[in-house]
Amino acid sequence: MKNTQEPLRVAIVGATGYTGSELLRILWQHPFVEITAVTSERHAGKDISSIHPHFRNIIPYELTHADALHPEETDIVFLALPHGVSMDYVQKLSDKHCRIIDLSGDYRLSSPEVYQEWYGKSHVHPEGFPDAVYGLLELYRDRIVSSRLTANPGCYPTCSILATLPLLEAGLIDPTRIIIDAKSGTTGAGISPNAVTHFSNVSDNFRAYGLKTHRHTIEIEEQLRTLGAATDSVLFTPHLLPVDRGILATIYSQPRKSITEKDLREVYHARYADEPFVRMRDMPPTLKDVRGSNYCDIHVTYDGRTGQIIALATIDNLVKGAAGQAVQNMNCMLGLPEDTGLSHIPMHP
Amino acid sequence: MKNTQEPLRVAIVGATGYTGSELLRILWQHPFVEITAVTSERHAGKDISSIHPHFRNIIPYELTHADALHPEETDIVFLALPHGVSMDYVQKLSDKHCRIIDLSGDYRLSSPEVYQEWYGKSHVHPEGFPDAVYGLLELYRDRIVSSRLTANPGCYPTCSILATLPLLEAGLIDPTRIIIDAKSGTTGAGISPNAVTHFSNVSDNFRAYGLKTHRHTIEIEEQLRTLGAATDSVLFTPHLLPVDRGILATIYSQPRKSITEKDLREVYHARYADEPFVRMRDMPPTLKDVRGSNYCDIHVTYDGRTGQIIALATIDNLVKGAAGQAVQNMNCMLGLPEDTGLSHIPMHP
Amino acid sequence: MKNTQEPLRVAIVGATGYTGSELLRILWQHPFVEITAVTSERHAGKDISSIHPHFRNIIPYELTHADALHPEETDIVFLALPHGVSMDYVQKLSDKHCRIIDLSGDYRLSSPEVYQEWYGKSHVHPEGFPDAVYGLLELYRDRIVSSRLTANPGCYPTCSILATLPLLEAGLIDPTRIIIDAKSGTTGAGISPNAVTHFSNVSDNFRAYGLKTHRHTIEIEEQLRTLGAATDSVLFTPHLLPVDRGILATIYSQPRKSITEKDLREVYHARYADEPFVRMRDMPPTLKDVRGSNYCDIHVTYDGRTGQIIALATIDNLVKGAAGQAVQNMNCMLGLPEDTGLSHIPMHP
Amino acid sequence: MKNTQEPLRVAIVGATGYTGSELLRILWQHPFVEITAVTSERHAGKDISSIHPHFRNIIPYELTHADALHPEETDIVFLALPHGVSMDYVQKLSDKHCRIIDLSGDYRLSSPEVYQEWYGKSHVHPEGFPDAVYGLLELYRDRIVSSRLTANPGCYPTCSILATLPLLEAGLIDPTRIIIDAKSGTTGAGISPNAVTHFSNVSDNFRAYGLKTHRHTIEIEEQLRTLGAATDSVLFTPHLLPVDRGILATIYSQPRKSITEKDLREVYHARYADEPFVRMRDMPPTLKDVRGSNYCDIHVTYDGRTGQIIALATIDNLVKGAAGQAVQNMNCMLGLPEDTGLSHIPMHP
Repeated sequence: MKNTQEPLRVAIVGATGYTGSELLRILWQHPFVEITAVTSERHAGKDISSIHPHFRNIIPYELTHADALHPEETDIVFLALPHGVSMDYVQKLSDKHCRIIDLSGDYRLSSPEVYQEWYGKSHVHPEGFPDAVYGLLELYRDRIVSSRLTANPGCYPTCSILATLPLLEAGLIDPTRIIIDAKSGTTGAGISPNAVTHFSNVSDNFRAYGLKTHRHTIEIEEQLRTLGAATDSVLFTPHLLPVDRGILATIYSQPRKSITEKDLREVYHARYADEPFVRMRDMPPTLKDVRGSNYCDIHVTYDGRTGQIIALATIDNLVKGAAGQAVQNMNCMLGLPEDTGLSHIPMHP
Repeated sequence: MKNTQEPLRVAIVGATGYTGSELLRILWQHPFVEITAVTSERHAGKDISSIHPHFRNIIPYELTHADALHPEETDIVFLALPHGVSMDYVQKLSDKHCRIIDLSGDYRLSSPEVYQEWYGKSHVHPEGFPDAVYGLLELYRDRIVSSRLTANPGCYPTCSILATLPLLEAGLIDPTRIIIDAKSGTTGAGISPNAVTHFSNVSDNFRAYGLKTHRHTIEIEEQLRTLGAATDSVLFTPHLLPVDRGILATIYSQPRKSITEKDLREVYHARYADEPFVRMRDMPPTLKDVRGSNYCDIHVTYDGRTGQIIALATIDNLVKGAAGQAVQNMNCMLGLPEDTGLSHIPMHP
Repeated sequence: MKNTQEPLRVAIVGATGYTGSELLRILWQHPFVEITAVTSERHAGKDISSIHPHFRNIIPYELTHADALHPEETDIVFLALPHGVSMDYVQKLSDKHCRIIDLSGDYRLSSPEVYQEWYGKSHVHPEGFPDAVYGLLELYRDRIVSSRLTANPGCYPTCSILATLPLLEAGLIDPTRIIIDAKSGTTGAGISPNAVTHFSNVSDNFRAYGLKTHRHTIEIEEQLRTLGAATDSVLFTPHLLPVDRGILATIYSQPRKSITEKDLREVYHARYADEPFVRMRDMPPTLKDVRGSNYCDIHVTYDGRTGQIIALATIDNLVKGAAGQAVQNMNCMLGLPEDTGLSHIPMHP
Repeated sequence: MKNTQEPLRVAIVGATGYTGSELLRILWQHPFVEITAVTSERHAGKDISSIHPHFRNIIPYELTHADALHPEETDIVFLALPHGVSMDYVQKLSDKHCRIIDLSGDYRLSSPEVYQEWYGKSHVHPEGFPDAVYGLLELYRDRIVSSRLTANPGCYPTCSILATLPLLEAGLIDPTRIIIDAKSGTTGAGISPNAVTHFSNVSDNFRAYGLKTHRHTIEIEEQLRTLGAATDSVLFTPHLLPVDRGILATIYSQPRKSITEKDLREVYHARYADEPFVRMRDMPPTLKDVRGSNYCDIHVTYDGRTGQIIALATIDNLVKGAAGQAVQNMNCMLGLPEDTGLSHIPMHP
């Protein structure tokens, strides 16, 4: 263990998927953290570098079963599990010492009923909802500080909400029609091979998917509703890019009153002036501008001709859209500066 | 020359760019065509396969200067030139025997004034506008038959207009707000290397560009206006995909009256039932579904929750978006079946 | 059926994989062929375009079970099946009217014993070996004409053998040490998703695989031995490229006597002067120079400094490396000009 | 400036290319370094983030002309310039306080004569050669410590030499014939757009280039000669991969005496046991296993059938192949632990 001066003790449950391995990549170099357990039910007993050879000679953990976790001696448990599986662990850990950051979708929505409607299954742990805090620091920092169960936002929602929230907070736009055209790399679909992520189907190709029914639709809309958006206001259309990492969201909305380009930019700049990981950009950002980092780059502009606002945001879906944001949440929950251990500079090219 | 029974005589002016070479690929196998001149001012005297080695042993032409073209003995001249250059050739050829298919943007708009506004330069040949026919066969077949100057549509406009026109023709949508979020491969940017198309800037990357000002905006809007769209109704946002060929447009509009999914699909199926190159799809189409072919695949759906219509269309930007559509126009102008020489099956993978 | 003047009757067994769908793409436009059966055990009863949507509105077949095939009324049966499965079909069809082109590896090697050694399973139909002809037209045209069972060469072997054979035939090189460093796109690994072909593992990545043991090693070596290569002379190392189609092989050998660049090129040019699908190139060829076509492009050069010969060859693995070569074999077997229905021009870009 | 306790003062001359920006990415987080000048003749006066937007809000430097550099107050000057330009700067700085790490090819070869032969131009500063130390720490650590002019190795040579040197040092192989088949991403070709790196020419494509004449050939051979390789023994063939970062070299050689797989692996493990950035791998490494990091991953195996040794190595060409290795050299030259500031974990996916 690399830091022995009373380090914070964290565990990663489900460390072999992409969010789990990205958590490892980030937490391994976090100055105040000791990783006490790295679990995988499927690969327990193997070295992590046998699954992820890029960690060889660097990150030495042996994967264990989740029951080897000691929740009473752990400060933060990261659940990097599929939705529907995560809730079982949250239930088991609910009366233990450890606090939880859940990277699945199991506690992001407002109620078990909404969950059932959009995820198509009943929730086994409805008791968890009242305590769960939606882990978007740019909105809920005050509640995350003391959260015992932080629902780490989805990748598309992180990008989409950050790009839209200044408009709603400032009451600038028609709250009944918000169009989000989003494009993601394939790691959002996980590490398990299937036809959708088969190289020959993705390479040199592009497609929309999940029209009208993608689960992130309701996650985005519920959050935007807290800022004034109307029910059934968010149309969200995801697309699959032939890249591994990165999301770009293009968001269209209509001003409810007269607006200028200058005003619009000032609203955003003011809103994000103190945010360590939101960068306002004068030009449309690209995926590589944030690749490997925790930044969300945003560009906003007003089209006077058509009277529409275009907001563009980009994140690395595995960092700000998953593991990086989870560590930012952890820092907040543990009273550390939020950017601790998150100083990765975007890698371009 | 491969076909000697009174073939139709065609020439390609500007044969070394991507639209020019794609014209060659298609016309070379056209059963009724004789290619009488293949020009390049820059590479005159060279064999075409020294520029495009994939043509080696197949297509034997030596590139000539454009002045080697004999317009009086040519049935169709294809101008595969940059905008601003094409107009000079049209002017020179305007009183000659040959008919012209111009693949540039020089005669696609409604007037020299609109051209100047969006292209930022004055038009040297305003006399050409009254005669020019916008070469979208699905709209203007009747006029193209006898056209002497066919303005072959832009790649984004082809895809965007085909996806939207049934909605406007049927009076289904609010004509004041049409949002087109389009994504294109890099060949749309041409064969000349620059920073935007530098491999390291495109690969594993994605970006929006030309926000609010892309020239295809007005081309799309002017065409949609003829079908009922309002002035300043079209918001068009192009994005650059890390693929070489293909465009996918995602189009959002709002019904002006109650509508069902079934009605919507029937409108499209009826509209395109006799079109040889428009395929209605039950699922969102992908770029590779049309790659290398002249097809435009369209999927349309209604989102009852938000009350929005989503239309998706995909084309190969070099075929249906340029050279293939140009040959389809030629067939129409010469009285041939429109699909002659255009039987390329999409290449997937 | 598109051609009714006594067409040749062919069937495709296993039409849903990449070689099967590529056979369909090519055979559908073959002027003298009628496709009488297109089979898939897994997808029988479905329309082919429900599996391969790019065929929609073009290729209308319903997939059937293989037992719907009428071998007595079929001229050529293409077996586009995995190795180990193909041999069962060959056995069943061995006393029927139809002739067979097997695209698997089941009959490419010299004996059941060699097959067992390299494929790790015993061969159920050793009786097939004496009759099987290795379907490399550039070597065995005379035997293929009358072949009843043509073993269509593997993709790597096609590319590697064509690049090397003039050297051995002319007795130019040391026959004991031939090094083949080959690079392939992912479609060579088939249509079934797995970790190796998962987009995130291939994109922006590159690797060697199958070191020392790839089955194409022995296929290449056995063929080269017939031309004079020594036993255990061929070292073959395949690599996986982040592209969908295409193979490039870089082949190193040592002259056994003094040689000049000019001599070397003349040997190749003379050898391939009459081959319709081998193109000698003055510059190193690229994958896209042959993409979608049946060409094999070859460049050869002598490095006087180190005294080595470098031969480079590229093919489209699904065309010249599979379906295209199979159709070329069919043409030969049926007495048609070999290039019938194979006039696809490479698609670049 | 981020570190004020007597930091080491470094300057980057030519900071806007890929090696320059990668130096910035690494040095910015180096705990003991103060960057005192970041120069660009072309972009002087601009903020670095106007050229490289991914640095926005992170790295604040304004680009200056090189003459703003104070060599007497600078500990290390990194020259990230093209070959032929770098030598002018070395000459000017040769009698100054600062020590130099030159990332160009200007001082990597053994003499001005060899330079002229392979680079096709005469060297303006032959006086530099005697002092220049080839900056491959795994070979020349002892000399680099006190070097005043370190010639940072080329990307291909770094990868190729590290994969081969244990074989030569141990006297295991025939020193007359070493075949290096190398594959690189496009960033090795630099930031300037040209036809070779135009997206449409690279994407979905692959090619060999620089056959027999690539300048890295002689750089590799000269280094291997110091370990026993013969003159004219190295055949080096580079290829261009459709990826941005990464090199994989596949190296073929012949044992001069009987050898076992076990022996072979032990030789490599022993040789690199203490090297911080060389990782021996049991399986062939991939580009992504080292992406963004300073590691060189190596796999070696013996093919008993053909009697050949295959060595595979992979690096990130911009890190271990350029900027990372340069910082490793700097650490050595300044007496710091070599891995200081180089703890980047490879980014996969």
